Amino acid sequence: MDYAEAGVDISLADQAKQRIRRLASRTFTRGVIGGIGSFAGLFALDKKWREPVLVSSADGVGTKLKIATATGIHSSVGGDLVNHCVNDILTLGAEPLFFLDYLAMGKMDPNIVEQIVEGMARACHSAGCALIGGETAEMPGFYAPGEYDLAGFIVGVVERASLKKTNAVKAGDLLLALPSTGLHTNGYSLARKLVFEHAGLHPESYVAEVSNKIGAELLRPHRCYWPMLKTTVARGWLSAMAHITGGGIPGNLPRVLPRGAQAEIELGTWPVPPIFSYLATLGRLERDELLRTFNMGVGMILVVPLENHRALETELKRRREKFYRIGQIRKCDPRKPQVAFTGKLPF
Amino acid sequence: MDYAEAGVDISLADQAKQRIRRLASRTFTRGVIGGIGSFAGLFALDKKWREPVLVSSADGVGTKLKIATATGIHSSVGGDLVNHCVNDILTLGAEPLFFLDYLAMGKMDPNIVEQIVEGMARACHSAGCALIGGETAEMPGFYAPGEYDLAGFIVGVVERASLKKTNAVKAGDLLLALPSTGLHTNGYSLARKLVFEHAGLHPESYVAEVSNKIGAELLRPHRCYWPMLKTTVARGWLSAMAHITGGGIPGNLPRVLPRGAQAEIELGTWPVPPIFSYLATLGRLERDELLRTFNMGVGMILVVPLENHRALETELKRRREKFYRIGQIRKCDPRKPQVAFTGKLPF
Repeated sequence: MDYAEAGVDISLADQAKQRIRRLASRTFTRGVIGGIGSFAGLFALDKKWREPVLVSSADGVGTKLKIATATGIHSSVGGDLVNHCVNDILTLGAEPLFFLDYLAMGKMDPNIVEQIVEGMARACHSAGCALIGGETAEMPGFYAPGEYDLAGFIVGVVERASLKKTNAVKAGDLLLALPSTGLHTNGYSLARKLVFEHAGLHPESYVAEVSNKIGAELLRPHRCYWPMLKTTVARGWLSAMAHITGGGIPGNLPRVLPRGAQAEIELGTWPVPPIFSYLATLGRLERDELLRTFNMGVGMILVVPLENHRALETELKRRREKFYRIGQIRKCDPRKPQVAFTGKLPF
Repeated sequence: MDYAEAGVDISLADQAKQRIRRLASRTFTRGVIGGIGSFAGLFALDKKWREPVLVSSADGVGTKLKIATATGIHSSVGGDLVNHCVNDILTLGAEPLFFLDYLAMGKMDPNIVEQIVEGMARACHSAGCALIGGETAEMPGFYAPGEYDLAGFIVGVVERASLKKTNAVKAGDLLLALPSTGLHTNGYSLARKLVFEHAGLHPESYVAEVSNKIGAELLRPHRCYWPMLKTTVARGWLSAMAHITGGGIPGNLPRVLPRGAQAEIELGTWPVPPIFSYLATLGRLERDELLRTFNMGVGMILVVPLENHRALETELKRRREKFYRIGQIRKCDPRKPQVAFTGKLPF
């Protein structure tokens, strides 16, 4: 009896580690000290920061991982995870510094590990974020064959002076929506149930309503808004930003609203990608349930003071970025919900 | 059909979040800005740091979690995780700043979540480390009922000037072992197989060889060495430290050894807790397999220059800390293994 017979293969783990090391080293930025393989990752903070505030977030990919397993495509979930994390700290104006992952699988498969880490490394590189460490755990009996869980941790930095307070948001501020590319990483438990159980589809099934195979459609990447927004953030043009993840707009926008402020959002002011209307029809989902579960086509909401909106919109147009004016902040009774929808969804 | 029917209950998640917030806020140190609930955790770096290097690590608890599930005791695994992370960055001399966790379960159980987070918060508090965020994910169909996965992420800081280089280790340095309290968080896949499958025991079974119920014995906490070592680290008395985790002494000690240095370790110079000899007997495990899989009673190895060992040993004795001189560093052919064992295990 040895460790390999108990389901843990240390030589396969070593193989996987070699590949991770090679991929990760390509993401190294100036701050990284040493390599991968020490007990911890090292990152020297640049001297340019006067009063650095570290901004950190932990996220998972959720049951979107089941779509990766079902399709055998493991190259995009790593990017989903990194982008989710980058967007989270972006809402506080933070520049990403470094990222670590946690990957747990039932049986170590160096090829799957490589695909996942390749996706993470690519997304880290695009965001200027170094992949400096992580834990790859083989946990026999915990995960079904071919399945794994994946979580990520990011650290970024922002000057204390430029940290926005949530009460920076005030009546009259405009709400601009930046489009999502699909479900991003939320609502998958419901989506999978509807698509694979109720409708009985397979990942390879072509769905005319979305003009795509359902597996590929559900694997669309979680978009990263950092490259697009970093100049805007540096200029201090925004009152706040909300990353629309689990809980949808009503679950996330209130996180940046002060007491007594309400976001009035007009449905129909932005296009809702067909995957959402398809899921709505499949499950006969009510409007409120849809809005609480999915991002409904909105990946990020920018709260913009009236005096800045013209400059911001000009800048976004110049970069050919799509955006939609979806509503406004107004004063309200603090006992009322902080997000009010008017109009109807465009389907 | 709604999200709750798909197995995701947002109100239970909210309940769990309330409890997490309360527990986490008790760990807040001076650097923490704001509370839990924003898109990210905020930590202001103290101005005392001249050239701060951030030291980070990600870890999991591994299949020790199965013991928690089997015994229904979820209050210690959180501490195991925090302590594992704190020890990892301690090896680089880093002071812990903040911690985030990732907790994924099939069905959200606020009571289990509370027990886990209570354990994390307690360990964070002891280490002076703030629990500033995390992700609690409900992933139906991913985890068996009552099961969960748990990972953690820590960030600490060290002055660039006091960062030890691995080639600080030199021939003649002494190796001091600090005792572990048991398996810590490694070797559980093998241990579980031997105990529950081969021997057919239940968590409640009393095992005379270890004078304990096997479940309780296997749940013994992963010890945190930071409170004990922080003064020693600040004094710069050590050449290096190795945290003995997955891969045992031969898998971890080489991480801090320069090329051409070999650690010669004499077996029998430290007491091996009875759980290890019990597992060895159950599985007829060979010496090398044991040493590669388990910590064998050594949780941390201190590499001490000859000129400091007297001062260090006096200090450890004064604090009534147990330690064992287990070997020495010598020069060797760079093609030879970096750890050589002599003598035999004391059983």
